[in-house]
Amino acid sequence: MSVSVFDHLVLGGLLGDDDLAACFTVDAEIEAMLQFEVALAEAEEQIGLVPAGTGRAVRSAAGSFEPDIDALRAGAAKDGLCIPELIRQLRAATGPEHGPSLHFGATSQDVVDTALVLRLKPVLDELERRLARLIALLDGLEERFGARPVMGQTRMQQALPIRTADRIAAWRAPLRSLHDALPALRPRVLRLQFGGPVGTLQQLSGKGPAISAALAAALDLTDGGCWHSDRTPLVEFTGWLAQLSGALGKFGQDIALMAQNETGTVRLAGGGGSSAMAHKRNPVAAETLVTLARFNATLLSGMHQALVHENERSGSAWTLEWMLLPQMTVATGTGLRIAAGLTENIEDMGGS
Amino acid sequence: MSVSVFDHLVLGGLLGDDDLAACFTVDAEIEAMLQFEVALAEAEEQIGLVPAGTGRAVRSAAGSFEPDIDALRAGAAKDGLCIPELIRQLRAATGPEHGPSLHFGATSQDVVDTALVLRLKPVLDELERRLARLIALLDGLEERFGARPVMGQTRMQQALPIRTADRIAAWRAPLRSLHDALPALRPRVLRLQFGGPVGTLQQLSGKGPAISAALAAALDLTDGGCWHSDRTPLVEFTGWLAQLSGALGKFGQDIALMAQNETGTVRLAGGGGSSAMAHKRNPVAAETLVTLARFNATLLSGMHQALVHENERSGSAWTLEWMLLPQMTVATGTGLRIAAGLTENIEDMGGS
Amino acid sequence: MSVSVFDHLVLGGLLGDDDLAACFTVDAEIEAMLQFEVALAEAEEQIGLVPAGTGRAVRSAAGSFEPDIDALRAGAAKDGLCIPELIRQLRAATGPEHGPSLHFGATSQDVVDTALVLRLKPVLDELERRLARLIALLDGLEERFGARPVMGQTRMQQALPIRTADRIAAWRAPLRSLHDALPALRPRVLRLQFGGPVGTLQQLSGKGPAISAALAAALDLTDGGCWHSDRTPLVEFTGWLAQLSGALGKFGQDIALMAQNETGTVRLAGGGGSSAMAHKRNPVAAETLVTLARFNATLLSGMHQALVHENERSGSAWTLEWMLLPQMTVATGTGLRIAAGLTENIEDMGGS
Amino acid sequence: MSVSVFDHLVLGGLLGDDDLAACFTVDAEIEAMLQFEVALAEAEEQIGLVPAGTGRAVRSAAGSFEPDIDALRAGAAKDGLCIPELIRQLRAATGPEHGPSLHFGATSQDVVDTALVLRLKPVLDELERRLARLIALLDGLEERFGARPVMGQTRMQQALPIRTADRIAAWRAPLRSLHDALPALRPRVLRLQFGGPVGTLQQLSGKGPAISAALAAALDLTDGGCWHSDRTPLVEFTGWLAQLSGALGKFGQDIALMAQNETGTVRLAGGGGSSAMAHKRNPVAAETLVTLARFNATLLSGMHQALVHENERSGSAWTLEWMLLPQMTVATGTGLRIAAGLTENIEDMGGS
Repeated sequence: MSVSVFDHLVLGGLLGDDDLAACFTVDAEIEAMLQFEVALAEAEEQIGLVPAGTGRAVRSAAGSFEPDIDALRAGAAKDGLCIPELIRQLRAATGPEHGPSLHFGATSQDVVDTALVLRLKPVLDELERRLARLIALLDGLEERFGARPVMGQTRMQQALPIRTADRIAAWRAPLRSLHDALPALRPRVLRLQFGGPVGTLQQLSGKGPAISAALAAALDLTDGGCWHSDRTPLVEFTGWLAQLSGALGKFGQDIALMAQNETGTVRLAGGGGSSAMAHKRNPVAAETLVTLARFNATLLSGMHQALVHENERSGSAWTLEWMLLPQMTVATGTGLRIAAGLTENIEDMGGS
Repeated sequence: MSVSVFDHLVLGGLLGDDDLAACFTVDAEIEAMLQFEVALAEAEEQIGLVPAGTGRAVRSAAGSFEPDIDALRAGAAKDGLCIPELIRQLRAATGPEHGPSLHFGATSQDVVDTALVLRLKPVLDELERRLARLIALLDGLEERFGARPVMGQTRMQQALPIRTADRIAAWRAPLRSLHDALPALRPRVLRLQFGGPVGTLQQLSGKGPAISAALAAALDLTDGGCWHSDRTPLVEFTGWLAQLSGALGKFGQDIALMAQNETGTVRLAGGGGSSAMAHKRNPVAAETLVTLARFNATLLSGMHQALVHENERSGSAWTLEWMLLPQMTVATGTGLRIAAGLTENIEDMGGS
Repeated sequence: MSVSVFDHLVLGGLLGDDDLAACFTVDAEIEAMLQFEVALAEAEEQIGLVPAGTGRAVRSAAGSFEPDIDALRAGAAKDGLCIPELIRQLRAATGPEHGPSLHFGATSQDVVDTALVLRLKPVLDELERRLARLIALLDGLEERFGARPVMGQTRMQQALPIRTADRIAAWRAPLRSLHDALPALRPRVLRLQFGGPVGTLQQLSGKGPAISAALAAALDLTDGGCWHSDRTPLVEFTGWLAQLSGALGKFGQDIALMAQNETGTVRLAGGGGSSAMAHKRNPVAAETLVTLARFNATLLSGMHQALVHENERSGSAWTLEWMLLPQMTVATGTGLRIAAGLTENIEDMGGS
Repeated sequence: MSVSVFDHLVLGGLLGDDDLAACFTVDAEIEAMLQFEVALAEAEEQIGLVPAGTGRAVRSAAGSFEPDIDALRAGAAKDGLCIPELIRQLRAATGPEHGPSLHFGATSQDVVDTALVLRLKPVLDELERRLARLIALLDGLEERFGARPVMGQTRMQQALPIRTADRIAAWRAPLRSLHDALPALRPRVLRLQFGGPVGTLQQLSGKGPAISAALAAALDLTDGGCWHSDRTPLVEFTGWLAQLSGALGKFGQDIALMAQNETGTVRLAGGGGSSAMAHKRNPVAAETLVTLARFNATLLSGMHQALVHENERSGSAWTLEWMLLPQMTVATGTGLRIAAGLTENIEDMGGS
């Protein structure tokens, strides 16, 4: 199946990103969900909310757990998400003694949101790595060609001559500031979700904050309080993604303009071929960066629409996030991959 | 892989649609592409543009064609789409005598756009069937409960009593007008794309219009001239999709409001369960209709952004369509599927 | 005040449109509201729902009515719209005998929606006129320069030579089909709104349909049933607007690319000057067409979000339309105005 | 004229915000532009780039400057913005001796962007004040009603009882974090724009950085380098606005749900009246918060589309910002104003 280009056997070669997509497989998702349930059981056992042995039993069950995917799919169709059925399966795997204690005090949203955030950790790591590498590649580009003159262009007209270093600096500036924004962004995004059925942890006999702290420590996440109906952390994350895609789109737009035959201020290796015109060398990578920028600019709007939750939790707003955030993440990763390749493919730039 | 919920093994149970997704598989796409190339070869042979035997040779090669998907993927990565590589493979399969005549005078966009439109035929058929069935289900709902009173609500406050028939009529009205819009929409969307490298069919020795007419007839598509850079037909189609999703979202929103425990003017079978609260019966289907409405409302914006092509063809705007249109189509089909199920699950409605 | 560029004393010169904006002044709006109330009173008198003399009294009061704008503003702030206060003022102006019969059986939304649609009539007329004129200007452009060669460009690379007539035809094609769509669009958009408090006209003693028919005839609008919570007619209208802006944006994008100094395949009179570079001749009109296309593509998304009404009427979704539709309308009119000027400013095009 | 609700004589009462709109009048804009030109002339005189006396002459001319608005409007229509004409007028007002030195080394975008940012200073101050006040109002609400029980609602169904303090805390949490984000946001948004015609300050004989530092100090803005084509600072600002509107929209949505007659967990003073139903008390303020959230979520997409500049400056992307940012700013201010009023109008909340 391949409704989405990111999961498409053929177009995935252009637009997909295997490394980042790996964070959004069902396997990765269930693994992160198990991680949450294990940490929860262990924290609750330690604080005495569940019987001794629960943590070990859940960890052991999780270690060899084989989900019944068809049943999870049927569960999602009925319940709107797979957690009730997953918990049922996990409890069965944990056995009658400790199974009932599993997931104690938690709610489906705790599992789903925390499992998302756990996977956003490697996502942020990978995006940061790629961003740093792209910045370094642009540094290298400046070293090679920075002193060359190029005609400055404003409003799509020749303005005054500049050096290619000036244009490269303009590409790099937003990338640097987006890179530098990561340390502050990371703890705001990588927040434990733990609130129980209505966000108050009221079943935990006053031990809610302690469990929450222990869980956050075990999972290496921020313990910033329940955010069931406050989706600004994820919206801020996708806003960062869309800014990054936009900055890459501006780079791509410039390269496409510079690569026009009449302008000819950049020469690219690896241009795309045509089925009809053997002489064509299409700036596919540059064009695709523009595509990805406009894609993320489009989808971000839906993430903001999804801020309007009803009361303690909205099924409809929350589901909308699931339809947008993974795509925006992978589109951004793809953009960084393509931008790096494009930079490496610049064989010549500017005049002599 | 499952970056998209539509291709997701688990969430696909809630949000996916196997019938419509089948139109967006690589297999279905390649089959439609082959259909185009076969019809082209046959039309060109008949008019004498390619040697006798070409049509038969291409049809035969297409009939047993086994695409090298990895090579197509690599081709898409390099060329921005798979056609150059697909034509190479197809020519090889057709053999040295007739292979070179395959795809004569056509360009990649002719193949991709026509192959899309060919698959939108069964899509429109299926959507029309579902829409008609949903309207009939609402008629049935009216028969069962239409005479019951219900409190009319404006601006989320009690207004004056109405009958449930009035509310059902409000749900059905836009569905009917969208259904009735299909006969006029169909020929505008189901248009042959055939323009050659720069939209002028200039390589066809003046036979362009004749080939175009023959192709359109063979493929049962409208022969309305090349639309390489005029994307309004597809935008109009997705506008219709988003209107339909929106109308279903309004239905879902109403059901979710009526199903509130405090309102209680609808009773639903098959509500979703919770991992934490055994008593919950969540109106998952109703909520999901709202989700899908907001999803399509979001994505439609990108389809309109993609109207801004550069000159004879834009790689970047065109690629953006590929990222949006299939998802919008499947989201609409899912909405119709869910709305029908929701209507069938209404056990009681209105007061006595 | 000038939060919006359309109402901006300075930027309005670039982006505003006095003719279309005139349909969105408070004066024009109130006049259309009075038109509705007069026609309603007359129709209801004729059918015997209100006392003899009501129609004449309301018409007379409306003829010399001087609204208290400050009170209307305060009313809108409190009630979410000005109708309750306007009706109060109008009843006072009509006098104690016939005032109470004014607005009988109607609701605020009937007045607001019908008053909008009444003003969309001259809007559609004006847009149609401009569209026809622009098409004629493009015909003239083809006559002057159509035979000239120009290099066809696909994916921002030189492809094969075409004639400028080919490119002009690509600009004109969507404009023609959007023009030709108007006769079918017009009756779907220009629909009377008349449903009473909860859309059922239940206070009218069974005379609802007759009053509705008389009102529609008097106001020259379609009598298609109450559409309080079915906003697809307005969404379809704004979809048409955004398609038109998009088609103009594609034209503008092409001109901006052709006007690049390095390409030089179009020469424009009237280019914009720069505060810093005396030699600049910026293709401001062409750029602005792209701006307007992206603006309408953005706002359209909100119109679709506003399809999700709650029950018989949503205050929040309805208000969102008021924030978007007038701007989209004027942006489209501005685009047509600018595109016509740009076409007239083309002094030379294509090669020799 | 009133194409926009923000500039609308009647609807402005509901949706407008005089304090914030005052930052977007032509007067305020020109005043900020003059501030830039005066500071530039003084900085350049001090560093010796323009003749002694220039600063004083420009300051004096600016002090009594009466712009010819009609000419500015005509200039904007022709040049895409009013700066060339404004500089012409200002030079004439400054006189033949010092006039030519005015605006030396600067470009139109330097003036427009800096003049925007100068006005965003009081905007941010005002938004911060309102946000702090709203948080305090919610604190007060918690004091009054926090201990009351209310039924927790998830997925629009009764879940488990909570206290109203829990729900209030959920409303306040994102407001607090958005408030706390301001100190870091402020210097990133309030950045001097100064790059000269092509962003390199190349006409300033190597004194560019010194002038830039002096200008930033004089105008109390960050000296972070030219950002002509890097629009992420403004995008980040509007992202913050849309997050804030979204958080307020969630608050409004909840109040509208709680104010339903069947739910009745909040009692509001000051509800909106109806033209047809005397008993109605519509939760207009709550609904409007949802409207404003969806409005800003819609417009933000266009700000991100506008990241894709061409080369050293894009006319079309830049103009798009002008059409979106002021509206988003005022919509956010209106939301804060309405949310404060709504909070004050809560007469009762939760059960006993």
